[in-house]
Amino acid sequence: MRTRLYHARVLTMEENRECFDGEVWISDDRIEKVIIGEASTEAEQFDQQIDCMGNLLMPGFKNCHAHGPMTFLRSFADDLPLHEWLNTMIFPAEARLRPEDIYTLMQLAILEYLRGGITTSFEMYFHPEMIAKACIDMKYRVVISGTVFGDKDNANVAIETLKKDYKNFYQCHSLVDYRLGFHSEYSCCKNLLEKIAMLSQELRAPVYMHNSETEHEVNECIARHGMTPIQLMNKIGLFEYGGAGHHLLYTDDKDCEIMKQKGIYVVTNPSSNLKLASGIAPIKKYLDYGVKVALGTDGPASNNSLNFFKEMYLAATLQKVKYQNAAAIKPIDVLRMATCNGAHLLGLKQCDILAEGKQADIILIDLLKPNMQPMNHLVNNLVYSGSIDNVIMTMIAGNILYVNGRFCDGIEPLEIYEKANCIIRRIECELTSS
Amino acid sequence: MRTRLYHARVLTMEENRECFDGEVWISDDRIEKVIIGEASTEAEQFDQQIDCMGNLLMPGFKNCHAHGPMTFLRSFADDLPLHEWLNTMIFPAEARLRPEDIYTLMQLAILEYLRGGITTSFEMYFHPEMIAKACIDMKYRVVISGTVFGDKDNANVAIETLKKDYKNFYQCHSLVDYRLGFHSEYSCCKNLLEKIAMLSQELRAPVYMHNSETEHEVNECIARHGMTPIQLMNKIGLFEYGGAGHHLLYTDDKDCEIMKQKGIYVVTNPSSNLKLASGIAPIKKYLDYGVKVALGTDGPASNNSLNFFKEMYLAATLQKVKYQNAAAIKPIDVLRMATCNGAHLLGLKQCDILAEGKQADIILIDLLKPNMQPMNHLVNNLVYSGSIDNVIMTMIAGNILYVNGRFCDGIEPLEIYEKANCIIRRIECELTSS
Repeated sequence: MRTRLYHARVLTMEENRECFDGEVWISDDRIEKVIIGEASTEAEQFDQQIDCMGNLLMPGFKNCHAHGPMTFLRSFADDLPLHEWLNTMIFPAEARLRPEDIYTLMQLAILEYLRGGITTSFEMYFHPEMIAKACIDMKYRVVISGTVFGDKDNANVAIETLKKDYKNFYQCHSLVDYRLGFHSEYSCCKNLLEKIAMLSQELRAPVYMHNSETEHEVNECIARHGMTPIQLMNKIGLFEYGGAGHHLLYTDDKDCEIMKQKGIYVVTNPSSNLKLASGIAPIKKYLDYGVKVALGTDGPASNNSLNFFKEMYLAATLQKVKYQNAAAIKPIDVLRMATCNGAHLLGLKQCDILAEGKQADIILIDLLKPNMQPMNHLVNNLVYSGSIDNVIMTMIAGNILYVNGRFCDGIEPLEIYEKANCIIRRIECELTSS
Repeated sequence: MRTRLYHARVLTMEENRECFDGEVWISDDRIEKVIIGEASTEAEQFDQQIDCMGNLLMPGFKNCHAHGPMTFLRSFADDLPLHEWLNTMIFPAEARLRPEDIYTLMQLAILEYLRGGITTSFEMYFHPEMIAKACIDMKYRVVISGTVFGDKDNANVAIETLKKDYKNFYQCHSLVDYRLGFHSEYSCCKNLLEKIAMLSQELRAPVYMHNSETEHEVNECIARHGMTPIQLMNKIGLFEYGGAGHHLLYTDDKDCEIMKQKGIYVVTNPSSNLKLASGIAPIKKYLDYGVKVALGTDGPASNNSLNFFKEMYLAATLQKVKYQNAAAIKPIDVLRMATCNGAHLLGLKQCDILAEGKQADIILIDLLKPNMQPMNHLVNNLVYSGSIDNVIMTMIAGNILYVNGRFCDGIEPLEIYEKANCIIRRIECELTSS
């Protein structure tokens, strides 16, 4: 399969490379060529040629923290603080999920990802086999994160689960990969953390987890272990091969030094942090320290949408208020968080930029909508006034999965909606009668 | 012209009325009937019947603070604090505008309003005749605000301008109305404020202005007059017939008492306040006081989009972080701010809800997009996960101006974009060569 995307503006997201007029050729799942200007195609044969009509080709967004299957809880339990929300509403509902539900609910998340230009997400949820199946069936790229937790009574079960899942899903499919991960410090005993650290060192693999999302969580860790979660994890040896922490709102200077030294990324989830009243992450501080940052939506129960334009806007503008400095953070830095930084964090170097040999994970952005006009500054337009409405096409591994309001053949949104509604209605009944 | 919108969910925004399945009939510019369930249409004749396919009819959004023609400055001067931004970038560029530019730039704003379900905006800008013409030509509903300012040397000119504009534009057209307004305390001498107060009392008319947007502004007013802007304006007699202040981030208890007593609305503009690093308005405090709140986008130079879904999300979630309380503000209250409160603030009672005899300013929201599924809570879905992508149709005074990605006949987006780009390129040249 050979595709030509022509008459485009192209933003490759390579360092220091400006946007240019050009075209992108795709051969099967990879980018064959990125061409400046109009190419000569006399001697070429393509299976499809798409006129981009002056619109923008750029790498798809990388959603570095998500719980896609939580779509069933969108608008289900709003306006509660994190710990109450988890314990009284989310955990009881999740306990009623059946494995086959996860498949449908992940499909619903994928619809939203594709519609909004997200070409990869990092999914932390139960039943990785169902997540993987939903993604493969819909030709969507996913990295699954380990999500184990446990006290001393089930640390052994947890570590065996993690080992088994790693074996099953690490590089298991061209579209599915797996990374070591655990839920959080507060849901794991120290023994389990130590076992995960040993596994990480044995596999030379990075580790990912929720980290320092609330002040309460950090204070509890200090009370338990005499140090912050970051410092504890570093001491235990969890950071020897890198990785990332999700959220990271409450950190001290020592934490930042550790993250910088060990190459630990911050995944910031500004919508979720607002909605759960957790606060505003100190992203400017991380950038000033040289700590790398990527972006996530978190799950749809706490966000409530999976919309990277919203996350980019908030990542940029909340810092201005937090630091009372309108120049706190540059839009281009936010666009890097949303694209290439995310790919690097996930270990997907083949998906970071538009260049020869890279995976064809590409989105087409409509520049001829009123929110993108006039064209004073492309990157600022994307970050400050862009909307999912501007996403015309989403391509993953060379497959066009969404274009002009329609999903590709084989994807049936109405069926997925119906099944998702049945799942939450069934769970509501079970909760009421229990 | 008689239109039937059927097979719909209907959210009238009447107090304490839930959403229901039904239909809305429109006769010319007004709502003829709102019907629960499916109507018998045997004896009826319609010019058009539109199957809403289960999607949501609701009142259009009312954008209560805007400078629409500032579209030319979108992404032109980002990442600067308010006063520096105004004085070094915005004012010099605005000084180069020609009256005919305002017409085009307002058209561009209207395109964005229609695409995002905004059916009325409150426009504060120069050349009201050009704003009125653009709105009438595009069949868009507008309320124009006075925007005078001046020191003692030109207070008389300013007040004469205000009188003349009031006379020319107050109830001048079924789609165009006018309200008394001035720029701000800091840009007006006391004598001018007194003259405006007298005019307000003579006309029994409410008054609107930027108010208490930054701490700096409030402190300067206290230094000049020994009291806050709200207290000064109240003392001068500007609040005898109501009105509203735009922004209102920095207010004390006495200010809140005055606003409540005098029925002064707050127009909150959360995106603009973030982007200019002004802060987060104390909306929960206003609601607790019983002060009424409506919503605005501010101008596209400081936002940078004109997107009420973004404003609603921020109005709801920023309060959670400000008050460290995830239940700080209810989504239904935010939806009221965005619709009926806005209509009341603007003195447009005929546009507040869907009911017999009201103006047919109606939007159709697509509930079958992934961000709206499953349907756990309609209002929360709108406020927390809605997007302009969900707006399928925008109708003003019975005219369908936008539907399914297309503007109605006579509206030519590409022409408007081209003209808007020419305007800003010309102004850039003039600024460089000056």
